[in-house]
Amino acid sequence: MSRVYNFSAGPAVLPEEVLKKAAEEMMDYRGTGMSINEISHRSPEFDALIQDAEQTLRRLMNIPDNYKVLFLQGGASQQFSAIPMNLMKNHVADYIVTGQWAKKAAAEAKRYGQVNIIASSEDRTFCYIPDLEDLPIHEDADYVYICQNNTIYGTRYPKLPDTKGKLLVADVSSMFLSEPLDVSRYGVIYAGVQKNAGPAGLVVSIIREDLITDEVHPATPVMLKWKTQADAGSLYNTPNCWAIYICDLVFHWLEDMGGLEVMKEKNEKKAALLYDWLDRSAMFRSTVDPGSRSLMNVPFVTDSDELNKKFIKEAEAAGLKFLKGHRSVGGMRASIYNAMPLKGVETLIAFMKEFEEKNS
Amino acid sequence: MSRVYNFSAGPAVLPEEVLKKAAEEMMDYRGTGMSINEISHRSPEFDALIQDAEQTLRRLMNIPDNYKVLFLQGGASQQFSAIPMNLMKNHVADYIVTGQWAKKAAAEAKRYGQVNIIASSEDRTFCYIPDLEDLPIHEDADYVYICQNNTIYGTRYPKLPDTKGKLLVADVSSMFLSEPLDVSRYGVIYAGVQKNAGPAGLVVSIIREDLITDEVHPATPVMLKWKTQADAGSLYNTPNCWAIYICDLVFHWLEDMGGLEVMKEKNEKKAALLYDWLDRSAMFRSTVDPGSRSLMNVPFVTDSDELNKKFIKEAEAAGLKFLKGHRSVGGMRASIYNAMPLKGVETLIAFMKEFEEKNS
Repeated sequence: MSRVYNFSAGPAVLPEEVLKKAAEEMMDYRGTGMSINEISHRSPEFDALIQDAEQTLRRLMNIPDNYKVLFLQGGASQQFSAIPMNLMKNHVADYIVTGQWAKKAAAEAKRYGQVNIIASSEDRTFCYIPDLEDLPIHEDADYVYICQNNTIYGTRYPKLPDTKGKLLVADVSSMFLSEPLDVSRYGVIYAGVQKNAGPAGLVVSIIREDLITDEVHPATPVMLKWKTQADAGSLYNTPNCWAIYICDLVFHWLEDMGGLEVMKEKNEKKAALLYDWLDRSAMFRSTVDPGSRSLMNVPFVTDSDELNKKFIKEAEAAGLKFLKGHRSVGGMRASIYNAMPLKGVETLIAFMKEFEEKNS
Repeated sequence: MSRVYNFSAGPAVLPEEVLKKAAEEMMDYRGTGMSINEISHRSPEFDALIQDAEQTLRRLMNIPDNYKVLFLQGGASQQFSAIPMNLMKNHVADYIVTGQWAKKAAAEAKRYGQVNIIASSEDRTFCYIPDLEDLPIHEDADYVYICQNNTIYGTRYPKLPDTKGKLLVADVSSMFLSEPLDVSRYGVIYAGVQKNAGPAGLVVSIIREDLITDEVHPATPVMLKWKTQADAGSLYNTPNCWAIYICDLVFHWLEDMGGLEVMKEKNEKKAALLYDWLDRSAMFRSTVDPGSRSLMNVPFVTDSDELNKKFIKEAEAAGLKFLKGHRSVGGMRASIYNAMPLKGVETLIAFMKEFEEKNS
């Protein structure tokens, strides 16, 4: 069948150009006579690839020289453990809980030290970002942790919290490369790439180099110690070569599109179209407070479970895929990552309008 | 260029049929209008895929019902930590050291308990498998650990060690699916799939279910606790979907070939051809004792470093790729995994013969 509009929260839509290139090169990666899936991670070919991926990402995100870029396995969930294991020197950390993933990260960190939940939006099903002004930052906190865009709840930090000089650690998985970030304001930024940059099974972790040390929790597994991978250029053992390859193609696609400022404009335009319609509709509404809305993940509902189900089913049949919301929010969710064209959002809105007319 | 013969130790050659199918399905996975790289791991499509991968592997390996099959990230190196963290109840384990990987596994386990090296072949650069008869198994040992096929040194256990009733844990990465194994003789069998079954970034771990418990090292990261993934059907978080997809295709390819008994015959034939030639050659020789030779990884040398270099260079130019041996053995190594056709081995031997004639 022809390509559909894929609104999945992740793994998610990738640029068609990237997938076409990957298919074309499958039997013969750039004149080697081998697939990238068959090439040793110790070969000059792969070395050139991973170097290029890192350098392209550095250009895109304007990553300062005193930050390391690591290509890791195990997803964000593995970093939930790695972060306290690598960073907790005082065994204290402050977490802002804005959704399930930050909550899971905090629960895991609690196994390695004292965790203070210094702000939370759980009282209203995480539909907003809490006030970030005068947070009760702990004096001994090794870091302050945030999940900057919340995939499930469709919220995004409108600005960074005032950490009162403490290290900021941010999970940016579902907003990775959707807009520029000032890397120098963070100690650690990390992202599972399967939302906005590549296939599943790869985490990109950008870490200020003074935070990469041998002083880690004594039980830290060798693969969770950042220094292991930093010293080995992410090649301590065989990495997820395929995901690095696809990310490299996506990074170049983003550069060709004009970089992250341009992507931000495009993403703001797509999101504004959708939110404006949701705010005008008599049937559909956004579940998120206006000041906290994500550019990437847009949950929405009608007031009827039955209508929600009908909508999802009919949208599916019309080639608008994976619109079902997360069970903790219900209703629908449209993830409109970098690779979702404006046309996809316009098609969704047109479909909603038609649905509303027919069903009201 | 046309496809070459790829003798890489891993990532390594994959069946051409599998790569072709993956290329064909890249833009539209089985009528979904999406790439497998874009499909949610929570979707019915992916659920069907991972179930099929597990069931096909169960048929291929004849895995008993009381064993779980886990699809994990982080490579064998991550299991080096997970194994002691999950299995050390008495904090004692016995390791047989037959190469760099077993040695690394033992070093990592030592961080979590007492490790006894009960046999080693390090005295002769790991060119043989030690005597396995009357091993000094420790009374309190939680398990006995082996690396059953040693990629770097080209050795393979001619039989399993007598563990005197203790649990056997085996890294079978570089012999995975190359021949039948009696799963019931092991507590844990695991393999990084990037050698003989798929792309990099996936470990298949086959674990007797009574060994999967909550009684683990207190600092075990959530992702390293086997029970986390066993309870979630390997979907606690997003797995390496691409690698699971390619493995599923490879598993079916192996079934179509006739299964592991047939693969063993094919592999024995390829290996015998190569070893027979090496034993007859006046210039080239195997570095491994006859009773310990691997069916998958065949290191060989000439008596001259200069000739070795010349051989590798000329072989490369002739489309025989990645024949350089590991630096700890030197010389050459031909990895002749399942997907290496007999023709590839014959071509290598013919090339060696010609080289010997020209250079002696």
